Amino acid sequence: MKKIYLDYGASTPVDPEVIDEMIPYFNEKYGNPSSIHSFGVEALDAIEESREKVAKMIGAKADEIIFTAGGTESDNLAIKGALFKNRDKKNSKGYSLITCAIEHPAVLETCKYLDKIGYKTKFVPVDKEGIIDLGELEKSISDDTAIITVMFANNEIGVIEPMEEIGKIAKENNVLFHTDAVQAVGKVPIDVKKLNLDLLSLSSHKIYGPKGVGALYVKKGTSLQTIAHGGGHEKGLRSSTLNTPGIVGLGKACELGLKRMDKDVKHMCGLRDKLIKNILEIEESYLNGHPKKRLCNNAHFRFTAIEGEALNLMLDDMGIAGATGSACSSKKLQASHVLTSIGLKPEQAHGSLRLTLGRHTSKEEIEYVSNAIPEVVRKLRNMSPLWNR
Amino acid sequence: MKKIYLDYGASTPVDPEVIDEMIPYFNEKYGNPSSIHSFGVEALDAIEESREKVAKMIGAKADEIIFTAGGTESDNLAIKGALFKNRDKKNSKGYSLITCAIEHPAVLETCKYLDKIGYKTKFVPVDKEGIIDLGELEKSISDDTAIITVMFANNEIGVIEPMEEIGKIAKENNVLFHTDAVQAVGKVPIDVKKLNLDLLSLSSHKIYGPKGVGALYVKKGTSLQTIAHGGGHEKGLRSSTLNTPGIVGLGKACELGLKRMDKDVKHMCGLRDKLIKNILEIEESYLNGHPKKRLCNNAHFRFTAIEGEALNLMLDDMGIAGATGSACSSKKLQASHVLTSIGLKPEQAHGSLRLTLGRHTSKEEIEYVSNAIPEVVRKLRNMSPLWNR
Repeated sequence: MKKIYLDYGASTPVDPEVIDEMIPYFNEKYGNPSSIHSFGVEALDAIEESREKVAKMIGAKADEIIFTAGGTESDNLAIKGALFKNRDKKNSKGYSLITCAIEHPAVLETCKYLDKIGYKTKFVPVDKEGIIDLGELEKSISDDTAIITVMFANNEIGVIEPMEEIGKIAKENNVLFHTDAVQAVGKVPIDVKKLNLDLLSLSSHKIYGPKGVGALYVKKGTSLQTIAHGGGHEKGLRSSTLNTPGIVGLGKACELGLKRMDKDVKHMCGLRDKLIKNILEIEESYLNGHPKKRLCNNAHFRFTAIEGEALNLMLDDMGIAGATGSACSSKKLQASHVLTSIGLKPEQAHGSLRLTLGRHTSKEEIEYVSNAIPEVVRKLRNMSPLWNR
Repeated sequence: MKKIYLDYGASTPVDPEVIDEMIPYFNEKYGNPSSIHSFGVEALDAIEESREKVAKMIGAKADEIIFTAGGTESDNLAIKGALFKNRDKKNSKGYSLITCAIEHPAVLETCKYLDKIGYKTKFVPVDKEGIIDLGELEKSISDDTAIITVMFANNEIGVIEPMEEIGKIAKENNVLFHTDAVQAVGKVPIDVKKLNLDLLSLSSHKIYGPKGVGALYVKKGTSLQTIAHGGGHEKGLRSSTLNTPGIVGLGKACELGLKRMDKDVKHMCGLRDKLIKNILEIEESYLNGHPKKRLCNNAHFRFTAIEGEALNLMLDDMGIAGATGSACSSKKLQASHVLTSIGLKPEQAHGSLRLTLGRHTSKEEIEYVSNAIPEVVRKLRNMSPLWNR
């Protein structure tokens, strides 16, 4: 059976060029980059080259990039790092934070945890299309606010948040601005300087790089408390032997991603629009999230009287890999906090299907899926007591 | 120029069998292990198989293994996790910890940080050969002690600590027992149950696996506070998309390591003893650390009137990669805390050379190095104002 992967939002295959670049660092150039001998030096050189490439992808300088194990660690470091540095002055400025209701769990759970242990978190709501309420955001800022953290683009419904406006608000109020850009990098041109970003998280495995590696952009002059204590790697911000092959892979993935972005975006956007048009022809089917301000590869639907999990399992049986929401929450039973935040009822939220396209998605795949989904929806509705037409 | 790598304590080349096992997970089986479709399932299956292999290496059960990004993260999670779970009851039992003076920075800096933010750390001294003072350790335990963390084997001088005795003391006093076993795994047979261990950190890149991945053994029933908030992976203890290729690599490295251990240990031990014998023929040269209770691959010397950094650089020019101490502290200027803890003066500590052998070290390499070092030592001493013979 031919397999069709439409879950690029969960993870991407590593680009063959990226693999080729990584291979020598496994058992030829295997020195510890912290070692002073030639094996160490060649590893460190490769890491610094990757740092340049990652920086270039987002308009940063190389020395503003800290390598981590992935998006979750980057988010944890950015947010906890900003709050914990004020630990000794908990009752003065810098013990509260602002985030958005539809964040990825890596941000949301970090903020909830901080709230639980004595910091204060404000959760700003979004509208029906998933866009953050800027008025509410601005009103939430107080003298105590250490950081605003709002995702660049949502991992479920693909909505792109108004980064420029949030950056202005943060700057005017002299508050740190962090974004989880894990889904946006490679699909949206990013210039951290123009957007007034102080901190930005990115992940390699969402951009055709290897799993287990990510980066945090830390604007020069931004002070954080490390959350990984040890040998003092990465300017003391992230102790751990540097993952040379992973970092080399991330660097190459950024280089390729930047070079291919225009072409990739045009390709994905065209197919995605075709897919949306086809699927919305199904009776009582809807697109979740903003129709325009969304990632080029994201199509997120809901179908009346359909259980998303059943829909996905049947599609999987036909070789089609989609998702109900994000991979990170796919095994949880509660309705997606993103979908309830945009005003959907739990039963509506449970009837959802996320299809995320990639660099390798073909016209034929989209045609196949466009035919398969109406058929599956029909079958499921025929079995559903909620569907009486 | 032929290159001789004698810094296996800093990092090891990935075994070709390990690389072969990893490769398919980069761009064939690239699904997110949290996804419910077939791509996700095949990735998750591979991860669970690796979990079995890692568990087997240390006598644990598969569901007692948590995958991390490396030894440093495992140490941070074990120690902070044990203390932070008692955060709400800071003034009751469970706010102090005990460690050893010669720990790796991943443990030492974590303990110092905890001490700084309100927990209490006791540092137990070691004797002149690097063995922890068990009497002092036992005396340090109080009603407030949450955890004892003592390394299995030291990363600089290779000394193996009395795990069994510490395990007994911890059990008798009902205190958690964690060990950083990063250097010991693959070189010493380990049975976490026999040793009464509750927590054990290990790292992949020290055992011919890839960098950027490690594991923490968490004995069933041991409760920790996570330090990586997010999607709730790894039973909520370590959120982050699972690094499938890295984890598969670690699993294979453990499988090979266990299978080869007897042979590897015998091989390294024989060559190491020959090396020590040869080097100690140099006038005013000494072996640091316990002569018997040490890792099979560790030879750690000091030479009167020699600067270790200069010695290493000259050896590097001859193609020989050694170290002054650990890679993690090789770029720092202060004398090694391990060497000062065993009673060396800073000038003695600075005259050190660590050579760590590996699976691939040959008799010829040891012979070459045994001839090269006396020559380099002679040259350096001829230039040294401290050497007047």
